[in-house]
Amino acid sequence: MVDLDTIKELVVESPAKIVLLVMDGLGGLPMEPGGPDTLPEDAPSPGGRWHGLMYRGGGKTELEAARTPNLDSLAARSSLGLATMVAPGLTPGSGPGHLALFGYDPLQWLIGRGVLEALGIGFDLHDSDVAARGNFCTIDAHGLVTDRRAGRIATELNVELCQKLGAIQVRGAQVLVEPVKEHRFVVVFRGEGLSDQLSETDPQQLGVPPKPVEALAVAAEPTARLVNDFIAQARQVLAAHYPANMVLLRGFAKHPNLPTFEQLYGLHPACIAAYPMYKGLARLAGMDILPVPARDEAHGPTIAEEFATLAANWQRYDFFFLHVKQTDSAGEDGDFARKARVIEEVDRHIPELLALNPDVVVVTGDHSTPALLKVHSWHPVPYLLYSKYCRPDGIAEFGERACARGSLGNFAAAHGLRLMLANALRLTKYGA
Amino acid sequence: MVDLDTIKELVVESPAKIVLLVMDGLGGLPMEPGGPDTLPEDAPSPGGRWHGLMYRGGGKTELEAARTPNLDSLAARSSLGLATMVAPGLTPGSGPGHLALFGYDPLQWLIGRGVLEALGIGFDLHDSDVAARGNFCTIDAHGLVTDRRAGRIATELNVELCQKLGAIQVRGAQVLVEPVKEHRFVVVFRGEGLSDQLSETDPQQLGVPPKPVEALAVAAEPTARLVNDFIAQARQVLAAHYPANMVLLRGFAKHPNLPTFEQLYGLHPACIAAYPMYKGLARLAGMDILPVPARDEAHGPTIAEEFATLAANWQRYDFFFLHVKQTDSAGEDGDFARKARVIEEVDRHIPELLALNPDVVVVTGDHSTPALLKVHSWHPVPYLLYSKYCRPDGIAEFGERACARGSLGNFAAAHGLRLMLANALRLTKYGA
Repeated sequence: MVDLDTIKELVVESPAKIVLLVMDGLGGLPMEPGGPDTLPEDAPSPGGRWHGLMYRGGGKTELEAARTPNLDSLAARSSLGLATMVAPGLTPGSGPGHLALFGYDPLQWLIGRGVLEALGIGFDLHDSDVAARGNFCTIDAHGLVTDRRAGRIATELNVELCQKLGAIQVRGAQVLVEPVKEHRFVVVFRGEGLSDQLSETDPQQLGVPPKPVEALAVAAEPTARLVNDFIAQARQVLAAHYPANMVLLRGFAKHPNLPTFEQLYGLHPACIAAYPMYKGLARLAGMDILPVPARDEAHGPTIAEEFATLAANWQRYDFFFLHVKQTDSAGEDGDFARKARVIEEVDRHIPELLALNPDVVVVTGDHSTPALLKVHSWHPVPYLLYSKYCRPDGIAEFGERACARGSLGNFAAAHGLRLMLANALRLTKYGA
Repeated sequence: MVDLDTIKELVVESPAKIVLLVMDGLGGLPMEPGGPDTLPEDAPSPGGRWHGLMYRGGGKTELEAARTPNLDSLAARSSLGLATMVAPGLTPGSGPGHLALFGYDPLQWLIGRGVLEALGIGFDLHDSDVAARGNFCTIDAHGLVTDRRAGRIATELNVELCQKLGAIQVRGAQVLVEPVKEHRFVVVFRGEGLSDQLSETDPQQLGVPPKPVEALAVAAEPTARLVNDFIAQARQVLAAHYPANMVLLRGFAKHPNLPTFEQLYGLHPACIAAYPMYKGLARLAGMDILPVPARDEAHGPTIAEEFATLAANWQRYDFFFLHVKQTDSAGEDGDFARKARVIEEVDRHIPELLALNPDVVVVTGDHSTPALLKVHSWHPVPYLLYSKYCRPDGIAEFGERACARGSLGNFAAAHGLRLMLANALRLTKYGA
């Protein structure tokens, strides 16, 4: 992959506006890959536009089954392809998936678990912080782990215990402890010269003691000492709180310090998302996080409210990342029909998006989450790139198999951002 | 390409069984490219299922011409693509071709000609051995080469001369000499600390003397001395055996020491093949070589006997590499129709394979051997990947041009093994 510095050299100004619309976990699978062409009873519009198609030996994917007249119409004027987020056969986590969509090679730019966990709760991570994912766990009288998740304690208790842990003081760093959910929390060590080259304490098995943190580099030794000091104090603080009487820490990581969209491309990017993790990932790329006013605060913003936020901020930015989470949630629930309905809901907002007259529109996902598998999967992700200057494939469908026939081919997702820039006339000629 | 260590980190256990069915030299070409849609007189079923197809400007390839109802039916439930074994435009030897199919980047993992020649005769090469390919040649009274192949002496004479050469003793290594065919033999130097960083002795022209072996690295100097000693003694031993009165050595190479399937993926792989070279390549990846009982020992096992061996050993392994040589032999003979008939024979065994209920099946070749060219070629190879969790392309044909429309795209063959692992649910998520 051409490095970011090379791309940066080619950037020129352009008034063009780019929209990257991500339906999380968009890619899917037929529910009965070897079986007849059937859909769940409540699936939308069986026999609709697919009626005449002959995918022998397989049904439709969620995207193929969904009625998406607006995306289909946009597809006809677009270049289509299948995006491989990390590498063939590799199932992307949300971090690598979004990094790829944002144009960063996810094999080069790693986001540690501690950082991702911190981003997931909206923690304002500083550049020099070291973050780790923590579990409350149970140890017996001999200090041996008997439950790596402390019986999945209630989140309320977690909040209370995190307050106690947050009061711990160690030499050389401030300690910040934030609850996540059940037995999970984030611990952040804030100070100068800290290193994330630390081994994990989770022994990954029962009947043995937690491991001490070890420095994986000489420069990490002071950090290892202060983290071990924190753990020793945590053990005392938690002694009376059986079953949550100890902590396990893993995924020590620092902010990846990505070069931002502004630094690389001179773009002013904005993020519209409902969940903290995706806002956090967008913030890594230097995006402004737009507040999305929600009628129902308890449930967070709707898809309609996200699109309304896009329209309301249209003049202020030249790059918009709009993230829809519900496709992934439905996929993880194994709910084929609900995932298809979320896609249909997004489809109904496409005219509203196009009415803004964007110069470049990409519609894709950060990975596949087939309802059949109920988890992220390795399957490449349908990718639609529309612009005034794209070469339209003339394929009037947006679906996995339609995209397989598209001119973008099966391509590395991180190339997509360069295609967006090119289509926005933001990249000048390479070489004379 | 993502390195093997990264993949290894992602491996999880799975009971899934994988079958990699390789038809050697599978990829082909139409006999009359650019011409009318004609087939050799004796080609199978011209006008059959191809009758209605419109491949403008060319006839069918061997695979396209063959009647393959079972592979076509499997294709409909599979993901298809074209595999590039080494790099676009590069014609793979059998070594690089198979290495790529086995998931090793063939540009990173090299198998020297000496090793390949040793594998080809089923020689049990040790890790520290240095193997070279030898030719008997003819020199005149001045020691100048007059025939680099010694008039292609009879294999019987080769066997006799190799026995004499095998009696040569040098300081620092045991010398093992094995006949191959006609003027070709393998010499293996067995000892500690030997190096394969040696120049070749074949001058590649007549009227000049054989070159001495030179060390290409300081550490190779002792090995160069002992090999030159061997050559000097060989010259004396062979002096009376005109025209085979001298040897030329090339392709000095050591065992590549590939990390095995077991080490990398926790797989227990087995190889079913009729020819020593392919068994040897499979052994490099750590595969068990299954004996294939053959009714006709002189001609070796049939395709039916190879499939019977697969069924007989089904419970004992979780990865099977089944190699069919006859496609390549027919291609090298320029026999389009015979190659198509071999493919048809393999096709008839597909139901037997599917009856075993494999979780993942790949059908492909290690390179192309078009009957038109009679040699290996650079053309990418049709690749069919079936699994319960593949995304079926719904293309009900297995052929070069059908595969060109598949969702795997034109991809690096070494990625294929990762796709097999993913489809066997043997790879966990990359990044959180």
